[in-house]
Amino acid sequence: MTTHVGLTARALGADRVILPDNAGQARETVADITDRFGGPFEVEQTDELDATIDRWAGAVVHLTMYGERIQDVGGDIRGTHRSEPLLIVVGGEKVPFEVYEAADWNVAVTNQPHSEVAGLAVFLDRLFEGRELASEWDDAERQVLPQTNGKRVVDGDGAATDES
Amino acid sequence: MTTHVGLTARALGADRVILPDNAGQARETVADITDRFGGPFEVEQTDELDATIDRWAGAVVHLTMYGERIQDVGGDIRGTHRSEPLLIVVGGEKVPFEVYEAADWNVAVTNQPHSEVAGLAVFLDRLFEGRELASEWDDAERQVLPQTNGKRVVDGDGAATDES
Repeated sequence: MTTHVGLTARALGADRVILPDNAGQARETVADITDRFGGPFEVEQTDELDATIDRWAGAVVHLTMYGERIQDVGGDIRGTHRSEPLLIVVGGEKVPFEVYEAADWNVAVTNQPHSEVAGLAVFLDRLFEGRELASEWDDAERQVLPQTNGKRVVDGDGAATDES
Repeated sequence: MTTHVGLTARALGADRVILPDNAGQARETVADITDRFGGPFEVEQTDELDATIDRWAGAVVHLTMYGERIQDVGGDIRGTHRSEPLLIVVGGEKVPFEVYEAADWNVAVTNQPHSEVAGLAVFLDRLFEGRELASEWDDAERQVLPQTNGKRVVDGDGAATDES
């Protein structure tokens, strides 16, 4: 699940993901995907979630099913993000109460239990208003070209490497 | 991951999820969440993905990083969905090539590798254009009320059950 959070962050427009210290395998997978499919995207690890939040020079959003509805607060967050970097905390049941208090916004993508990956995905798509879907990727070894049917993968420089 | 697909489908507006035969635990969890947080939402299992697609009386979308860009085909799919039920196939690497051919649309939520849960979430949010976020839930035992800070859970009938 941590790997999916990292890959979703990368694919949907975040600059960076900060994973917990015990997520070495997820870090490797996300770094490997970035090497192959392009960046820029940074992967870090920390065992100090609290300090990461406290030291953050910008706004903090905590995604939680208990928070305010994204359809109510999304506009304010987008406005703030125009002038400040945004830290998005994704953690599910493991998040201590201090994070709720430290966050500038506790935000719910529905007040229903589902998936932190789904919540992050919808949040980012709405934060960037879909612009993230048209991202260009630098230094990609390979690139997937959209197809009506089948799979088409080319080199980062556009040469065909695989087609089916 | 299968559980997260099921819970995301429920939370973001699908009527039903059809899980593979080996996903009994995921089925139980999704059914339990539906009992507690409300419906209507159906959970089924099948070992015949091909037959499910072949017999589907409506349009079929297959979510895959190799497909057409959602920003290009989302409008057509929304239009079709106004008159036909939509089957969304989510499967990742396990999906056989026949599914690509049977689908009316192979759709990519970015042509980057990330998460089938994230892809489904963004797809549903765009399919329903955010209306799914305001869903009302029937027969809920409990209901989470949006809060700026902390957790507030009430009975389905509105009485307080927990607050922190």
